[in-house]
Amino acid sequence: MAIIKKRKNSNKGQKLWKYAKKIIPGGNMLISKRPEIFLPNQWPTYYKKTKGCYIWDLNNKKYIDMSLMGVGTNILGYSNPEVDKAVKKTISLGNLSTFNCPEEVKLAKKLISIHPWADMAKFTRSGGEANALAVRIARAATKKDKILVCGYHGWHDWYLSSNLSNKKNLDKLLMSGISTAGVPKSLKGSTIPFYYNDIKKVEKVIKEDNKIGAIKMEVQRNIKPEKNFLKKIKKICKKNNILLIFDECTSGFRENYGGLHLKYKINPDIAIFGKALGNGYAINAVIGTNKVMKYAEKTFISSTFWTERIGPTAALKTLDIMQKTKSWKKIKKIGSNLKKSWIDLSQKHQIPIEIFGLDALCGFKIKNDNKSYFKTYITQEMLKKNFLASNVVYVCVKHNETIIKKYLSELDKIFFKIKKNFNEKKILKLLENRAAMKKFKRLN
Amino acid sequence: MAIIKKRKNSNKGQKLWKYAKKIIPGGNMLISKRPEIFLPNQWPTYYKKTKGCYIWDLNNKKYIDMSLMGVGTNILGYSNPEVDKAVKKTISLGNLSTFNCPEEVKLAKKLISIHPWADMAKFTRSGGEANALAVRIARAATKKDKILVCGYHGWHDWYLSSNLSNKKNLDKLLMSGISTAGVPKSLKGSTIPFYYNDIKKVEKVIKEDNKIGAIKMEVQRNIKPEKNFLKKIKKICKKNNILLIFDECTSGFRENYGGLHLKYKINPDIAIFGKALGNGYAINAVIGTNKVMKYAEKTFISSTFWTERIGPTAALKTLDIMQKTKSWKKIKKIGSNLKKSWIDLSQKHQIPIEIFGLDALCGFKIKNDNKSYFKTYITQEMLKKNFLASNVVYVCVKHNETIIKKYLSELDKIFFKIKKNFNEKKILKLLENRAAMKKFKRLN
Repeated sequence: MAIIKKRKNSNKGQKLWKYAKKIIPGGNMLISKRPEIFLPNQWPTYYKKTKGCYIWDLNNKKYIDMSLMGVGTNILGYSNPEVDKAVKKTISLGNLSTFNCPEEVKLAKKLISIHPWADMAKFTRSGGEANALAVRIARAATKKDKILVCGYHGWHDWYLSSNLSNKKNLDKLLMSGISTAGVPKSLKGSTIPFYYNDIKKVEKVIKEDNKIGAIKMEVQRNIKPEKNFLKKIKKICKKNNILLIFDECTSGFRENYGGLHLKYKINPDIAIFGKALGNGYAINAVIGTNKVMKYAEKTFISSTFWTERIGPTAALKTLDIMQKTKSWKKIKKIGSNLKKSWIDLSQKHQIPIEIFGLDALCGFKIKNDNKSYFKTYITQEMLKKNFLASNVVYVCVKHNETIIKKYLSELDKIFFKIKKNFNEKKILKLLENRAAMKKFKRLN
Repeated sequence: MAIIKKRKNSNKGQKLWKYAKKIIPGGNMLISKRPEIFLPNQWPTYYKKTKGCYIWDLNNKKYIDMSLMGVGTNILGYSNPEVDKAVKKTISLGNLSTFNCPEEVKLAKKLISIHPWADMAKFTRSGGEANALAVRIARAATKKDKILVCGYHGWHDWYLSSNLSNKKNLDKLLMSGISTAGVPKSLKGSTIPFYYNDIKKVEKVIKEDNKIGAIKMEVQRNIKPEKNFLKKIKKICKKNNILLIFDECTSGFRENYGGLHLKYKINPDIAIFGKALGNGYAINAVIGTNKVMKYAEKTFISSTFWTERIGPTAALKTLDIMQKTKSWKKIKKIGSNLKKSWIDLSQKHQIPIEIFGLDALCGFKIKNDNKSYFKTYITQEMLKKNFLASNVVYVCVKHNETIIKKYLSELDKIFFKIKKNFNEKKILKLLENRAAMKKFKRLN
């Protein structure tokens, strides 16, 4: 205990985190970056610098990030020199002025060229706001206010209102226990959730309600489409004059160059991008057909900071590099191999696991009622070996063979220990602190 | 005409703008940056680079910005070397990672120290989203959904819903003709507008409706508070358990170091900052008392790009420089002198004008039913002299005596011509193109 205490006290990140929680509600700006969901009281929490897939914490300790890689923002690795160089040049030229930046027009052109079904684009600097913008346009175009949703689409009222009619509606789409505190009660019934692959639910809702203006969904997250699910969704939309909106903030550019819908050959009316688009710089895009996007002009959508220049600069350079290096092929291969290796380790140690996710955004669950204990144990032990690791990996091109080999070698040893302690009470004893919080985990 | 046509064709900015409107609904991301509100078909529209209060357009033509200075974002001038250096250093270190950046904690601490009534802070990357966040927290805290509004507070549903009960509600707060297309009709009545200094309306609404959770307003924009208006608002809020939210996105740091409310010694429950906070980099802050802000934890508020590091880096450096150089004193003095000079010119040429706004965000209106014709004429003639000028100036510290003198000397000549053509038809004839659009002008 004495040793643990000493380590805790010297953890500058944890010290800052305790202070942060006093002056920032929730401690930070993104729930997925709270230390409690990784390793309570021990997670380094803050960083000094990054490079490739390395992060240095406030104690100057260097880690290999085999976890969220900036929550999916850095497919090309942290601090990509070409992207950073382009951004620095933009800063030298000037980031914001009374005039507009030409980069936003170039980015619109580029995204449309990648997605030939789309004619127009609009940009924001957060995924939540891009989603709200798409909903505004869809409602303006269809004159129908109700939205069917599947997946995670941000923090805004239109989406959280799903829980007004049943507080468990978002349990499996976002996380359990989402309160509707502060969401106008009049929005009750305006957003209706459905689960991935549940075509019957979609058919039922649309049959009973002619006020559905749009279906907004992620193309694919943890499970694959079954029985032509996406094709059926598209068909229902067309038949009922409902707009199809794909939220590709997470799925875009991981399996192919552009939205994942291109792979499935299902064109939506609107698609939303973010995360990886600027390789670590804030930029989101809403693209769509002319027929739909023109309704953006019928309403008031406008923001000062959407005119800053770093976002489109970073996106243009990121897209160039992705295209040139075929980054999606690389990360898909790395992720696919990782999945195989996890299965190998699970068989070797006879630990039952379940694999999920896209190849480049992959994860595994240890089959146990208390899987969070095992997840926490893995994070705890991996951290000692200077790896940031949980049970999900956002793969980046910098996850080279040497790094993966080292990661798997450490995981091998941990799986060996888990096998010896494959029991709720035993594994709990091995945790130096409490287990990671479960309720923040996305379950879908 | 031949000469004009030639000039039009060689205007690279106008050429790009025509293309932009085909692939971006509305052409850009901010209505206040559309060329039609300055000088249709002639405004340079796009920029290559900036420095101090200079902007270079796509034709490499250099202008002095005596207009919006990045729509109020650049009090320290464009491309401030110290701010840019800090941002470049942050880029070298890494802009986004799986960990959080310590700068956001420092910024929270700094803003609270400037505003001693506040205990906690939260950050976004757009003013609209900061406003939506404040409304969410207020509704969660009071459990009352209705909001009274005065001023401009962004593009989100909660605010535009003001126009659902009367389509003219936002005419004098935002602009006339704001459609509610795409805003859920169920929000009707949830936001109720009032005009600045109209304390009777506020008293009436609150007397008749006990569901008002918050009053959200700008502390001051174009006109001054009369008869202890702000004090009365505060008193009403306290008496009726209503939260007071000051939107200081525009007013903050122009008259004093921090929110304008500090000058009036009226503390709100929540204050919102943006625009000038990062001197041209995207960063917004929502600060508030612990009693209210803690409700942010009862709801789901979270965004990936709110964790990027450039925003808080730029804000910290901007605040340091502001504090060190007392920038508000400088811009207040420049603006105050400008107001006096406009009055002098108006008297010299016997052109009736009206002065409005804060000293550092000042403007003048030519008293005429067709004032937009005169405004357009001034912009047109000033542009020929390489000035960006309309009738509003966001003053920055780089507007030195030489520049102001040159600006006034050109304006003097234009006022002389206006006097000779002080008549609707005559001035219209002098416009080389159509007049600037009126409906985009904020009227309050």
